[in-house]
Amino acid sequence: MKRSLTGIRATGNLHIGNYLGAIREGVRLQEEYECLYFIADMHSLTTNKDPNLLRMQSLDIAASWIACGLDTQKHLLYRQSDIPVVAEFAWYLSCCTGMGLLQKAHSYKDAIANEKEVNHGVFAYPVLMAADILMYDPDVVPVGKDQKQHVEMSRDMAGSVNSLYGEGVLKLPEPLINEKVMVIPGLDGRKMSKSYNNEIPLFSSEKELRKKVMSITTDSTALEAPKTLDGTLVGQLFSFFASQGEYEDLNKRLSKGGLGWGHAKEELFQAINREIKEARDRYQALRSDEDQLNGILEEGRDKALKIGIPVLNRLREAVGMSPQTCSFKKI
Amino acid sequence: MKRSLTGIRATGNLHIGNYLGAIREGVRLQEEYECLYFIADMHSLTTNKDPNLLRMQSLDIAASWIACGLDTQKHLLYRQSDIPVVAEFAWYLSCCTGMGLLQKAHSYKDAIANEKEVNHGVFAYPVLMAADILMYDPDVVPVGKDQKQHVEMSRDMAGSVNSLYGEGVLKLPEPLINEKVMVIPGLDGRKMSKSYNNEIPLFSSEKELRKKVMSITTDSTALEAPKTLDGTLVGQLFSFFASQGEYEDLNKRLSKGGLGWGHAKEELFQAINREIKEARDRYQALRSDEDQLNGILEEGRDKALKIGIPVLNRLREAVGMSPQTCSFKKI
Repeated sequence: MKRSLTGIRATGNLHIGNYLGAIREGVRLQEEYECLYFIADMHSLTTNKDPNLLRMQSLDIAASWIACGLDTQKHLLYRQSDIPVVAEFAWYLSCCTGMGLLQKAHSYKDAIANEKEVNHGVFAYPVLMAADILMYDPDVVPVGKDQKQHVEMSRDMAGSVNSLYGEGVLKLPEPLINEKVMVIPGLDGRKMSKSYNNEIPLFSSEKELRKKVMSITTDSTALEAPKTLDGTLVGQLFSFFASQGEYEDLNKRLSKGGLGWGHAKEELFQAINREIKEARDRYQALRSDEDQLNGILEEGRDKALKIGIPVLNRLREAVGMSPQTCSFKKI
Repeated sequence: MKRSLTGIRATGNLHIGNYLGAIREGVRLQEEYECLYFIADMHSLTTNKDPNLLRMQSLDIAASWIACGLDTQKHLLYRQSDIPVVAEFAWYLSCCTGMGLLQKAHSYKDAIANEKEVNHGVFAYPVLMAADILMYDPDVVPVGKDQKQHVEMSRDMAGSVNSLYGEGVLKLPEPLINEKVMVIPGLDGRKMSKSYNNEIPLFSSEKELRKKVMSITTDSTALEAPKTLDGTLVGQLFSFFASQGEYEDLNKRLSKGGLGWGHAKEELFQAINREIKEARDRYQALRSDEDQLNGILEEGRDKALKIGIPVLNRLREAVGMSPQTCSFKKI
């Protein structure tokens, strides 16, 4: 079975856009691949300087993915910082990576365009990301089109290591681009995003979820007038959660007139709730027991170490360092 | 007792210049400080891409310092790469270090002035160096004037961490500048350096040492003519190894005429040989038993871990990561 590796940025309060855009697709890969998922908490430090928030968000995100179907028995979920020698791996890559490559990174270019003072973590980000990937010998790295560059940079670095130290030291992964990746609209029709304050939270209460769905912007067509879901915000969101048959059925009823947008939104709420209800319950249960959650992450760490340390040792040996066993235990 | 930390660049074939400029002074610190010495093999990777050479040079340098008096019972000698989480420490610093600070580093400016393509390791070098220092809470870092900037940058990074995460997370070390640091002249009078091919090797055979000393450039004053050591190359080198009395005595005899430079060089050879003879024997013995040498370095690693991991955990906790025990074992 081919191996896939997915990095998950630790951010708080997931919304429906994160669910549809990342989690649902990410979890689906388990059918086809041996999947490694890691919570990129060391990366978060480039922007997040709140230690308690960071700790909480790592656990939130772990609980969310497991609740949505990440099977930690058959696949791996670990916290990046629990295998901190990934930064050592990154150092070896740094010594084989030209400054020119890093200066071309979109993430760095965006940062210097928007901020006065950029920290070195932002600049070195693609090297740590390449280490995150290359240390686990994945066959594929699922990414959106906008992140394809990161995988390409990882391949460049691996190629550079191999040409300096011998073919086969590092394995070049392929990007697995999800062509279907959609922009999920928020309550006001713009891209769903916390910065627009237009998101539908993933794991709020049913009551809160209904309230949010009811606040979706619609036009003011009269109740009696015939309507169509096609090309509307409600219709688009409904299509993500309802079957094609359900979509056509609702559309047919709307086209006859006498059915208002409020009714359509109630059906949208029901469809969303149907899909995430059980995940929400699981999330609450997981999140309320931090010891258990940490235990799951530690199992993931141990399984990931078994894959990662031999690759790290391959690289250590190649560059002239001593292969070592590494073990880490939370205190 | 205050703690001092010295980084040793792993380079091959030490010469008298290295001995006088770094080792003899470095070893002398043991009288006043609890001394930590580490072999900066991860730093060497920025320029050294020969794995076997790197491995050999780490052992050469370890044997050389021990032979010259580094007391591994009372003080610490370890290989940087044996405690690889120093690169993790560097990542946390990176996220608190502005790009502007790194762009000002002399080492980077020199590199871009001299080379077409500089690797990211060269640019990130001061961050790893700061981690090397700050992870061991030293009071002082002995440096030559030209390396003072590295300690200043470490202080800047520690200050930035403390202002973001709270005073006392990292300890700011003081540079310990050796004002006496001398430029040691080589056989031709220029600075002793492998790149000038003018060096007197530290641990060659007696025969080779005599031959090298005899090849020191002198003027062609006739044997009978009165001479002085003052202001001559032979005199300068002699002053490093002879007592003031011996210097004055030889000078007096030279001033009477009838004593040639060959004779003076023979006395210089004797003075050098007297000082390094035992160290040379110890070096040969140490270097011929790699298992023992590795054992010494592993003891150093274990002692250094006891100091370094608690500091790393202080930083981990501050930034929002989980404190961990780390253990490493060569395989």
